[in-house]
Amino acid sequence: MISSCSLSTETLQRIYGQGARECPSPNEQLTLVFSQSRPFDLLELEELLDAVGWSRRPVRRVRRALDNSLLKVGLWRHDPKFPRLVGFARCTGDGILEATIWDVAVHPLYQGAGLGKQLMAYILESLKEMGLDSVTLFADPGVVAFYERQGWVLEPNGHRCAFWYPK
Amino acid sequence: MISSCSLSTETLQRIYGQGARECPSPNEQLTLVFSQSRPFDLLELEELLDAVGWSRRPVRRVRRALDNSLLKVGLWRHDPKFPRLVGFARCTGDGILEATIWDVAVHPLYQGAGLGKQLMAYILESLKEMGLDSVTLFADPGVVAFYERQGWVLEPNGHRCAFWYPK
Repeated sequence: MISSCSLSTETLQRIYGQGARECPSPNEQLTLVFSQSRPFDLLELEELLDAVGWSRRPVRRVRRALDNSLLKVGLWRHDPKFPRLVGFARCTGDGILEATIWDVAVHPLYQGAGLGKQLMAYILESLKEMGLDSVTLFADPGVVAFYERQGWVLEPNGHRCAFWYPK
Repeated sequence: MISSCSLSTETLQRIYGQGARECPSPNEQLTLVFSQSRPFDLLELEELLDAVGWSRRPVRRVRRALDNSLLKVGLWRHDPKFPRLVGFARCTGDGILEATIWDVAVHPLYQGAGLGKQLMAYILESLKEMGLDSVTLFADPGVVAFYERQGWVLEPNGHRCAFWYPK
């Protein structure tokens, strides 16, 4: 993986907002940026979540859920005019004692190059600044090993996660 | 369990705030009330959480975590002058797609009479009004059966819960 810093701070901030940061890119031709403030095109976000197989949710509800999230991270393929959303994750929580990570997605075309790992590292670094007691997530069967490799503790001491679905 | 409605709506609202509701009581001498708006005495809340064995957290951080919670529920032992906090739970989340329940506690002196079950039912009813996709929680080993009996789905399809602790 080649880690190049090809964008000036001024460009980063102008296009991607305060605190945006380049993501180490697996490819010289590709400049990738993490942003917590560049607004999402909700149709583009829906396409990304569709591509990784999340169930479709009404755009209006997604917008409100994003508004109520503690943190939203976009991973953008840089283009001066048309940056493209290639990764996403968000957190909810009180931001003081706990936070929970949801909807982690990297577009299939960009998978296999360590970007999911970079995305998680970026989020945890942002959350670390909040001084939380713990960060939690619910892992689908296919990604349990992914989180385990990154040091997540799975079900410590017999904890279980429980889901309740309104009828 | 005797379910009596001994308080007038006016009294309920004056002491416990808008939307407060009596909780079916296991004992004629005992009037219990659910409230989402009566402010907590943080030392009293700390005592309650201590009594059920939660780890102690600085009051200042607990206050901010409560401020950032989606829902806070107190279960009060009614007294016209000095209501006493005997149960508690809170939720975080976006309030649109998901919510997570934390810190469910019933004081040991009031356990074994179905109040934990009542508290969960009350919370789920409140969350149901939000139209969420799902509600989640992390269950300690000792209470897994408690949630299972109430219809919670544990680790569906091999899902795992993962915890990350800042170093």
